[in-house]
Amino acid sequence: MGKILKLGFPKGSLQESTQKLFKKAGYNISVDSRSYYPVFDDPEIEAMLIRAQEIARYVDDGVLDCGLTGKDWVLEQEADVKNVAELNYAKEGLKPIKWVIAVPNNSKIKSLKDLKGKRIATELVGFTKKYLRSKGVRAKVNFSWGATEVKPPYLADAIVELTETGASLKANNLRIIKTILVSNTRFIANKKAWKDKWKRQKMENIVLLLKSALAAEQKVGLKMNVPGKSSKRVMSLLSAIQSPTVSPLSDKGWVALEVIIDEKVVRDLIPKLKSAGASGIIEYPLNKVIP
Amino acid sequence: MGKILKLGFPKGSLQESTQKLFKKAGYNISVDSRSYYPVFDDPEIEAMLIRAQEIARYVDDGVLDCGLTGKDWVLEQEADVKNVAELNYAKEGLKPIKWVIAVPNNSKIKSLKDLKGKRIATELVGFTKKYLRSKGVRAKVNFSWGATEVKPPYLADAIVELTETGASLKANNLRIIKTILVSNTRFIANKKAWKDKWKRQKMENIVLLLKSALAAEQKVGLKMNVPGKSSKRVMSLLSAIQSPTVSPLSDKGWVALEVIIDEKVVRDLIPKLKSAGASGIIEYPLNKVIP
Amino acid sequence: MGKILKLGFPKGSLQESTQKLFKKAGYNISVDSRSYYPVFDDPEIEAMLIRAQEIARYVDDGVLDCGLTGKDWVLEQEADVKNVAELNYAKEGLKPIKWVIAVPNNSKIKSLKDLKGKRIATELVGFTKKYLRSKGVRAKVNFSWGATEVKPPYLADAIVELTETGASLKANNLRIIKTILVSNTRFIANKKAWKDKWKRQKMENIVLLLKSALAAEQKVGLKMNVPGKSSKRVMSLLSAIQSPTVSPLSDKGWVALEVIIDEKVVRDLIPKLKSAGASGIIEYPLNKVIP
Amino acid sequence: MGKILKLGFPKGSLQESTQKLFKKAGYNISVDSRSYYPVFDDPEIEAMLIRAQEIARYVDDGVLDCGLTGKDWVLEQEADVKNVAELNYAKEGLKPIKWVIAVPNNSKIKSLKDLKGKRIATELVGFTKKYLRSKGVRAKVNFSWGATEVKPPYLADAIVELTETGASLKANNLRIIKTILVSNTRFIANKKAWKDKWKRQKMENIVLLLKSALAAEQKVGLKMNVPGKSSKRVMSLLSAIQSPTVSPLSDKGWVALEVIIDEKVVRDLIPKLKSAGASGIIEYPLNKVIP
Amino acid sequence: MGKILKLGFPKGSLQESTQKLFKKAGYNISVDSRSYYPVFDDPEIEAMLIRAQEIARYVDDGVLDCGLTGKDWVLEQEADVKNVAELNYAKEGLKPIKWVIAVPNNSKIKSLKDLKGKRIATELVGFTKKYLRSKGVRAKVNFSWGATEVKPPYLADAIVELTETGASLKANNLRIIKTILVSNTRFIANKKAWKDKWKRQKMENIVLLLKSALAAEQKVGLKMNVPGKSSKRVMSLLSAIQSPTVSPLSDKGWVALEVIIDEKVVRDLIPKLKSAGASGIIEYPLNKVIP
Amino acid sequence: MGKILKLGFPKGSLQESTQKLFKKAGYNISVDSRSYYPVFDDPEIEAMLIRAQEIARYVDDGVLDCGLTGKDWVLEQEADVKNVAELNYAKEGLKPIKWVIAVPNNSKIKSLKDLKGKRIATELVGFTKKYLRSKGVRAKVNFSWGATEVKPPYLADAIVELTETGASLKANNLRIIKTILVSNTRFIANKKAWKDKWKRQKMENIVLLLKSALAAEQKVGLKMNVPGKSSKRVMSLLSAIQSPTVSPLSDKGWVALEVIIDEKVVRDLIPKLKSAGASGIIEYPLNKVIP
Repeated sequence: MGKILKLGFPKGSLQESTQKLFKKAGYNISVDSRSYYPVFDDPEIEAMLIRAQEIARYVDDGVLDCGLTGKDWVLEQEADVKNVAELNYAKEGLKPIKWVIAVPNNSKIKSLKDLKGKRIATELVGFTKKYLRSKGVRAKVNFSWGATEVKPPYLADAIVELTETGASLKANNLRIIKTILVSNTRFIANKKAWKDKWKRQKMENIVLLLKSALAAEQKVGLKMNVPGKSSKRVMSLLSAIQSPTVSPLSDKGWVALEVIIDEKVVRDLIPKLKSAGASGIIEYPLNKVIP
Repeated sequence: MGKILKLGFPKGSLQESTQKLFKKAGYNISVDSRSYYPVFDDPEIEAMLIRAQEIARYVDDGVLDCGLTGKDWVLEQEADVKNVAELNYAKEGLKPIKWVIAVPNNSKIKSLKDLKGKRIATELVGFTKKYLRSKGVRAKVNFSWGATEVKPPYLADAIVELTETGASLKANNLRIIKTILVSNTRFIANKKAWKDKWKRQKMENIVLLLKSALAAEQKVGLKMNVPGKSSKRVMSLLSAIQSPTVSPLSDKGWVALEVIIDEKVVRDLIPKLKSAGASGIIEYPLNKVIP
Repeated sequence: MGKILKLGFPKGSLQESTQKLFKKAGYNISVDSRSYYPVFDDPEIEAMLIRAQEIARYVDDGVLDCGLTGKDWVLEQEADVKNVAELNYAKEGLKPIKWVIAVPNNSKIKSLKDLKGKRIATELVGFTKKYLRSKGVRAKVNFSWGATEVKPPYLADAIVELTETGASLKANNLRIIKTILVSNTRFIANKKAWKDKWKRQKMENIVLLLKSALAAEQKVGLKMNVPGKSSKRVMSLLSAIQSPTVSPLSDKGWVALEVIIDEKVVRDLIPKLKSAGASGIIEYPLNKVIP
Repeated sequence: MGKILKLGFPKGSLQESTQKLFKKAGYNISVDSRSYYPVFDDPEIEAMLIRAQEIARYVDDGVLDCGLTGKDWVLEQEADVKNVAELNYAKEGLKPIKWVIAVPNNSKIKSLKDLKGKRIATELVGFTKKYLRSKGVRAKVNFSWGATEVKPPYLADAIVELTETGASLKANNLRIIKTILVSNTRFIANKKAWKDKWKRQKMENIVLLLKSALAAEQKVGLKMNVPGKSSKRVMSLLSAIQSPTVSPLSDKGWVALEVIIDEKVVRDLIPKLKSAGASGIIEYPLNKVIP
Repeated sequence: MGKILKLGFPKGSLQESTQKLFKKAGYNISVDSRSYYPVFDDPEIEAMLIRAQEIARYVDDGVLDCGLTGKDWVLEQEADVKNVAELNYAKEGLKPIKWVIAVPNNSKIKSLKDLKGKRIATELVGFTKKYLRSKGVRAKVNFSWGATEVKPPYLADAIVELTETGASLKANNLRIIKTILVSNTRFIANKKAWKDKWKRQKMENIVLLLKSALAAEQKVGLKMNVPGKSSKRVMSLLSAIQSPTVSPLSDKGWVALEVIIDEKVVRDLIPKLKSAGASGIIEYPLNKVIP
Repeated sequence: MGKILKLGFPKGSLQESTQKLFKKAGYNISVDSRSYYPVFDDPEIEAMLIRAQEIARYVDDGVLDCGLTGKDWVLEQEADVKNVAELNYAKEGLKPIKWVIAVPNNSKIKSLKDLKGKRIATELVGFTKKYLRSKGVRAKVNFSWGATEVKPPYLADAIVELTETGASLKANNLRIIKTILVSNTRFIANKKAWKDKWKRQKMENIVLLLKSALAAEQKVGLKMNVPGKSSKRVMSLLSAIQSPTVSPLSDKGWVALEVIIDEKVVRDLIPKLKSAGASGIIEYPLNKVIP
């Protein structure tokens, strides 16, 4: 097949956010709703839609050269793969997710050791068993086909479940005992593919662009004009965060400042810049910020 | 809790058809979309919505007294339960479903023994492994999180998948090698609960009503008036199927015939009845046919 | 306009169930999704879709001759109308609904008198004020534009809300203090229209058919054949409920029994009939049962 | 292909109502949303989903043995086919539809002859041209790809459009000049297929069952008990419509009457029957009424 | 609760546009579809989803420190609150909305005084009554639960209704008599909270960012390169609108111009700039324009 | 009507993308879902929603001054119009679409001449007939009301169908014989309107803005800072594509480079720029790129 990179694309909750990220990175992907083969506008990439739970298995097998999936499922599948990059995005936000042990609010179970002999329902059976074994706790861990949160107290004594905000656990009157795994999205590679020079270079380029696009999600551009007298104060405000690009303006004594910063700090910074003398402040969006 | 029967109600593909069947059997069930506890208008029944895959496990455990699930999942869970009744209905039709081993049309795999060393994807991992072992075939059987039909040939060499009409297999260019399990819906009971006299009587009543409702799904009532001279011919047509109820009419020499028969035979029977002299033929729907 | 009956048809939660009831009563109604004028296949009826909350007002005014709405809104609007018939059906079931005062589970409010000086949110402002006044309780009653259940404890101290099963109150951790109104659906008439002979006859006919259809919702037909020897036992079982129609069969010594009974009693009756010797028992659905 | 009947099944607005009618006639049809080949539970029937507009063409060609479509499209396609049966049902109701010439309310066009030289938009180009020619009117008739009603006055001077209730025309401020075609659903056959004895018998059976089911849509069963003294009055009320079946009851002097009548007359009949002395009146639904 | 700002977030028609505006202002808000508490990524803000109609009442009460709602509902609730800022956006556009008195096209009502004794339906009962009283007009103003536009002429003689484009009024054949209120979105504060130094500063910062984001909705950035000879003409075109930032380019004699202007003027400006000698003209989007 | 430009706006598959393009070009368009008259925020433009198939006919007639439609339908309608501009966008992508002749994979038809006497189904009847005639091929070309791809082999021997990616043809086992038309979106004008000076200027301005917006869809802005020593290498990388704008920075020896380039080349360029010494590389989105 020559110069082809086989990529596992996560079907399901990660699919839409992954597709948007690739688009921002510069790849147009056509996904026909009836096909499992998304078409990239790069003929060197052959992608396949696969549930995130299974991608690591197929990357390990060598059926795929690489793929995007969660750290959780890499561990659950006990896949022996190269971890190329961590990409901090999930279904909705840009933060890692957590797998936690939870019990009903009024349960007598307070700590790991109270789980002894109890029934635990989870989709992450393998990792949970290994974790409990490592802590010396023996419990019955059963695979849950869904609706895990409503299983306690009748169908299970505790659950191991994924949570982003804790809202669903709270709504089901569950209390967190312990976080057993913090997981993010990973770009993983088959170890043999990673040794292939062409494939490795290809993967590194993709990862560079994905990271640039992901960085741009959290950053914005800020421009302003500053008169000479205010220059020092404004510079000191900005330099604390990121060294700005300074350009002379034709209007003597004025300079233009431009800086790329985290969107989060903008809302505190703007009132300060304004009172320090900056004028014509604007914020503009970015597609990519190359690290 | 005294006189309470705890019933597992199948969530998912069987849910809607099960709810309709219970309604026809005379039970009104309120299901709030946010709750997993359907409320029966019989206070002696406490139901819980659970995935069909898991019901047998909880009936075996004794968390539930009884439940409705597929024979397939009873076997997969290796549950030790009382099989109270077979109810021939599935998600859409009234026929049993099948689990088959399928491979790509152009695969070299022709029979069970060709599966040796191959990768098989399925949701029914346990039963499949046991089945292959019993046939002396060693293969890698992996759990599939969905979209099993599109896995061959890249992600699997063969699959074990549920099929009703074969349409989905055909659409994915798959060929059936072997049917390994024919499954229907079952009413199962916990063995201890079955020994409890009150619970057993309760379950037997529910099953009688469910069976009456299920029978009515496939049967219709037929009524007609017949003059004396035609009586013999019409009777012989009907008696071949089911002995009719004959009532005298006030109009001398005429009788009214009424019979409950399979809907399937009606379309062939009606033209014959008409030409045999029956008049005023009508067909009416039924709610229950008590066996 | 001559012989025309102007009817207010409830838009919103009662609309679908009212339309089904009229259909069963023998009226076909076309409702174009863009029109507020449902077209009856009876040219003597001119209907208009109006929110149940407002119908009583327009019947009182004489803009409408009659309408279907809840007792609750008749009282809220303080409408002076003729109450022609009570029809026990609501959005989903065939039972009356209740308006209750509810407070957070952990509220200190335990009884009516604790509401003194408190903020109460409700859609039923007028009736609530009048009710509290009659009990000598002074409180601030505010109109709520929706999502009333989530208002306590921040936006209100108590609410007055409609409930069928109590499920929504429970889900919002609210406790019922008092039921202040039990309401069903009513067919109401303008008092002047009621005195018009033609209009009154027309309304009485409609009500008779609606009641026949409503009765049929809760009843079924039961037929069976009984040999002479069992006749007495079967008759005594049935006669306790409803006197059956007995017809002779051509087969000597046998009779056919037919009875119209509440669907609710069927599930208990069938096992008894069977063991009493009845055979060929079937249950069939009804469109109308004329009272 | 031996004993196979090839049937064109109308895709689009007639599809759902046709499927329901076949179901009531006793045929179960599985339609996979991705397939154009509905599967009948009668292996002698091979069906294909085709737009109603095109079915007549393929029946004429002999690609299909028979099909269900509108009289309008049989004429538009100028298909030379056998008209086996007229079935009075459409997308929503049981009445024929009409094709009308319509113009803006304030148009100067008042009659057919005013259309001379005007632009007419329609989906029924061929029939419209022929019709106008037969009336000696020359106009420009253009094919309209949809939204025909909004074309006047800018994009067309008049339209020829299908209407059931006239509501859409009214909403677009259009006035009907002339009805040029009244159309219903037809079962048509290829003329050669109609001469094949087996195919003809098969088609006649299907049509008999479809007609029985269609008749049952508009009829209901009525049963009542009548004491001797009222018998004459009740009989005279019923006999005016349809001669009833009279059965003796075990209770001396009483008879049971049963009659199948149009649902439409029920609402007027019931009050009369009641006051004539009939008791225990019930109405029940029907599946088929064999003509 | 210390440093917490309690914010009322408008549920319903304003919700989506408000959420987008906050996002552009730099606040990420998670709204769980089952919760009434949107979570801001600023822990100092506690928000609650409340119908716009009610927010002013709760800000007045002090249950909330501040909120976003329409001027219309501030007046209707007669709330005594601090009007912090006017934000010109509505459900769909960036223009204020209007409440108008409308009557059927063919009504005899021509002016305010013709409303005497008439029935007026509206959701804005209080304000309408007050308005009419101030004009010396006595009429019956009734609360309308919805579908106000279809009430005339039967259920009301006139209505007071919200309109953006007049399209819905036109579609219902209504004619505007008088605009009685022009309303926009407002950021309002509880008067006591406004006196709290920390809360006031917090609110002012939020308002600054909301205004910056709102300004950016209507503005774009324009960049171009200009050779010395064209500089004067291009400058004069731009300066008429907004003074541009001028930077020297390395290419002698050329300058780069950049300006932030209303998107509306761009489509007229661009052809002029081009013919004046500007080259490499591009337009880019903005996130914020700090006023 | 004075200074008004009447514009045909394509309803259907092109509608959404055309609306987005106009928005980016600086025109806000309100489309009420119930109206066929989109309202532009430019009072000199009066638009009407018309199916793309018909627009050319109305532009030719002079009912419209101009419109956006496909080259395919201009040819099918044989419209005599001015082709003002080609705009390369379609329903989903920015590439032209193709009309092809396709046959079943296993058909004996291999080339145009094999179509002799065959049945061809298509929506593009006129163009297809003319094309075949020009090639000396006689075949039966029938209008297809939809689902053209499933017609072969029973209902047609070949089809002429529109394709973007070929996916749908492949899914229906069809093979392309010949591409008979490559089509893109066109801005067309009535020939008389084009001679009107004001209308022509207006159309040219609209086209300039549409083209600027379309160009911006495929281009991005790239900025970076470069130290003196790297300047040459970076410049040579960029200059190969597009000459960059170079500005001096206050930091001696550094320059800022800015360039507008095709998004497609970015993913290859970025790694090279980085290794050539550019720093602070960012990519930003554009609204318009004036050609």
